[in-house]
Amino acid sequence: MNKKIQSALISVFYKDGLEPIVKELSRLGIIIYSTGGTQKFIEDLGINVVPVEQLTTYPSILGGRVKTLHPSVFGGILGRRELESDVQEMAEYKIPEIDLVIVDLYPFEETLANTTEEKLIIEKIDIGGPSMIRAAAKNFKDVVVVAAKKDYTALEELLKTQEGTTSIEQRKSFAAKAFEIVAHYDVVISNYFNGNNGSYFLQSVNIPKAMRYGENPHQAGTFYGDLDQLFNQLNGKELSYNNLVDVDAAVQLIREFQGSADTVFAIIKHTNVCGVAARAIVSEAWKDALAGDPESAFGGVLVTNGTVDEATANAINEIFFEVLIAPAYDEAALNILKSKKNRILLQLKAEGLTQNAQNKSVLNGVLTQQQDNGNYAEWKEAGGREATAAEKADLEFANIICKHLKSNAIALVKNKQLVGKGAGQTSRVDAVRHALEKAKQFGFDLNGAVLASDAFFPFNDSVQIAHSAGITAFIQPGGSIRDKDSVEYTQQNNLAMVMTGMRHFKH
Amino acid sequence: MNKKIQSALISVFYKDGLEPIVKELSRLGIIIYSTGGTQKFIEDLGINVVPVEQLTTYPSILGGRVKTLHPSVFGGILGRRELESDVQEMAEYKIPEIDLVIVDLYPFEETLANTTEEKLIIEKIDIGGPSMIRAAAKNFKDVVVVAAKKDYTALEELLKTQEGTTSIEQRKSFAAKAFEIVAHYDVVISNYFNGNNGSYFLQSVNIPKAMRYGENPHQAGTFYGDLDQLFNQLNGKELSYNNLVDVDAAVQLIREFQGSADTVFAIIKHTNVCGVAARAIVSEAWKDALAGDPESAFGGVLVTNGTVDEATANAINEIFFEVLIAPAYDEAALNILKSKKNRILLQLKAEGLTQNAQNKSVLNGVLTQQQDNGNYAEWKEAGGREATAAEKADLEFANIICKHLKSNAIALVKNKQLVGKGAGQTSRVDAVRHALEKAKQFGFDLNGAVLASDAFFPFNDSVQIAHSAGITAFIQPGGSIRDKDSVEYTQQNNLAMVMTGMRHFKH
Repeated sequence: MNKKIQSALISVFYKDGLEPIVKELSRLGIIIYSTGGTQKFIEDLGINVVPVEQLTTYPSILGGRVKTLHPSVFGGILGRRELESDVQEMAEYKIPEIDLVIVDLYPFEETLANTTEEKLIIEKIDIGGPSMIRAAAKNFKDVVVVAAKKDYTALEELLKTQEGTTSIEQRKSFAAKAFEIVAHYDVVISNYFNGNNGSYFLQSVNIPKAMRYGENPHQAGTFYGDLDQLFNQLNGKELSYNNLVDVDAAVQLIREFQGSADTVFAIIKHTNVCGVAARAIVSEAWKDALAGDPESAFGGVLVTNGTVDEATANAINEIFFEVLIAPAYDEAALNILKSKKNRILLQLKAEGLTQNAQNKSVLNGVLTQQQDNGNYAEWKEAGGREATAAEKADLEFANIICKHLKSNAIALVKNKQLVGKGAGQTSRVDAVRHALEKAKQFGFDLNGAVLASDAFFPFNDSVQIAHSAGITAFIQPGGSIRDKDSVEYTQQNNLAMVMTGMRHFKH
Repeated sequence: MNKKIQSALISVFYKDGLEPIVKELSRLGIIIYSTGGTQKFIEDLGINVVPVEQLTTYPSILGGRVKTLHPSVFGGILGRRELESDVQEMAEYKIPEIDLVIVDLYPFEETLANTTEEKLIIEKIDIGGPSMIRAAAKNFKDVVVVAAKKDYTALEELLKTQEGTTSIEQRKSFAAKAFEIVAHYDVVISNYFNGNNGSYFLQSVNIPKAMRYGENPHQAGTFYGDLDQLFNQLNGKELSYNNLVDVDAAVQLIREFQGSADTVFAIIKHTNVCGVAARAIVSEAWKDALAGDPESAFGGVLVTNGTVDEATANAINEIFFEVLIAPAYDEAALNILKSKKNRILLQLKAEGLTQNAQNKSVLNGVLTQQQDNGNYAEWKEAGGREATAAEKADLEFANIICKHLKSNAIALVKNKQLVGKGAGQTSRVDAVRHALEKAKQFGFDLNGAVLASDAFFPFNDSVQIAHSAGITAFIQPGGSIRDKDSVEYTQQNNLAMVMTGMRHFKH
């Protein structure tokens, strides 16, 4: 049902953007009730305001903690205009109808970002604001509610084009937005008080970005989050759902090499690393990452911690890829890479990736865990001999790469280049076999290469098979009841084996 | 700082559980303010109550929509006892301190579960309740807040053992719980209004279950959700984080066979199906599921849509597994399976799995999508000949299995038995190679077997390699610019190929 706004209650923390709204209200002859700073702001525009205190015949008390929490205000918002008894009571208690509520919330989230002082934070828990917003949203049959500046434009447009009249659909739509804003506010407050120790998993993320589709074209998908905090997109089409999944995997991997002396280049396909190398210069890192599995690289997501230069850009330009992520690009490189307009080029910002919990839908709920941080808990040389310096460097590198492969995972590394991988396998020895096949397929000599396993070896078959192919050093968490079998094999065959005490399952 | 409760405001929708609390308050000489039904409930216990109307000198109006929204109530809750100016104003306006607030919320969620009538649902949006709870929680320095029956026990204990005195830590802890309850409430309301079209991703799930650890021992993990809705656990230790991930995969898979004439048994490892068969009787389904990959089955999660009988239990009993899920168990079967006390036996309830969105943390936000529902969008015979009836049955089965393998995925099926799979591969042809190797490893004759691919073939190499191994029929979504190459190959070699128009990526 259409309704015409006759009166408005305005009480906002931030006054910017309010002027055109108030002028429209004034033009339409709408009575404006207001409080404190907002009242002054409107009066300064030369527009008449009825102080809420006049409505309530009660002053603002307790330093402003209580100013609108009064039956005259809430009755005016909540009264059902179609209900005879409500209308009679409103007349009896001199409660005027309030048809439009413009109220924002004290900046709790912003305060939290700027201080750790509890007193300041607590004072920014708005009580009156959410109460009025919720009351107005509940009574959307009669009332228009605007709970944030971002909805001012919609309100202004509506005041201008509909001369203060609104439809039930419009009012319900404003109410829906208002409930979101209040829910988000309280999720943030609750998470401040409860940290990770609450009885509820409460999450609220804004800035929605509709994906063209989800993992598959028949599934709808949306990303919520602020990608601009993380990246500058320098070129290309919109990121897809699957792009984002792979970009996540790529960024998680490259974070491992923050501050590293090596320049690392990696190629991600279906969330798995299929090529990666660490080199002194970026073009060499790219060349050797690609050499690891040129077959899989097609259509992949590329990532480096180095500046993409002209030579590298020319080399990359020869293959088809979806996304390239780097902290910086030379201008010449950018010109070369921009030659294809669909190619997504992302400049990764140094800060931003602070999310430290991983959540996912499982069964009828949510499974949440801490990120898998770290490479190894200890470095226990348990093999037939200690690893050489070169092997140690490769073992460290291989273990980090293996951590970013789906379980069961095996990574074969030689000279800080991934030369074979097995991932997503249901048996460990299969992952070993696949890794060896890939190395063979692309002509790598595995003599002196190392092997990382994301979890322990249940039997010594993996070690045997790998050794037969030339592998001389192993890294694995240990912890199998048959560790001894694998260790004995390394003793009999003069192989190095490091036990890390840190499993890296990733599903 | 310790504070002694002198006065309490009680206003609850559900009265059960309140009696012992009220009696304690009475014993301690605490003044009780109350409204309507709660007031009557307390008076019926023979305990004195001060009506809130007496406090506010204002009646309950608008059918109870406005009864506590008054400065006398909110001032009494929000007034800062250590602040001279607040104390003076409270005296001036005759606002008594309120030291304990016991308020619950109208049952919005329960109403939503029982009706679709908007009027009834809207009326259950509580306005006064959340306002009082939030005010009391904000002022935890001075006030104790209890926002739900589940916290009555803690309050009662505290009243009994501390004679009405509370510490700041205790009050803050009650406040934290109260903010959770209000946030959850508003998330539910917001999601009711916004459905999937909101500007915020808002999620609230309760019933936390701390896992021993996350995916790995060095990661903390928690599941939020009500597993009892889904399962009766009949035996075994607590489900681990990785168990839950695999149980989810198992349940998603077996849902595909709800109402199917076949009895299906499947074995899950690291979220992938490594063995599955559909047979007339359950023991045969188990035998042939296991035969698909007896190596990987070790330590797996088993699932069936049939009743586990004695013969099947005896057969399963021979291997080591973590979890078995079935809708029903014969008593004899249960006795056999319970012989190992750690084994997790779950009886899957028919209802429960209604979650239709999949959410996960990606980068600095959340990626959400609809579930992948369905098998094929169309059944287009695009090959050199139409599939035979037997091939069709196997193709349908293979396609559903393939959907539940990590991408890139290939499933080889013969007589409704998975005889080889390739999963989690970064190139499609590798997935084909792995699937063929597995079939060969376990001695399957692939002549007349069928192949399902979760996405199109970028080249015709996969079809060639599979055909050389004996595969005669293929199912895939189609959509490659080189579909023609694969189709031509089937024409030249009298093979069937079904195009479904439905990709099934799963990462």
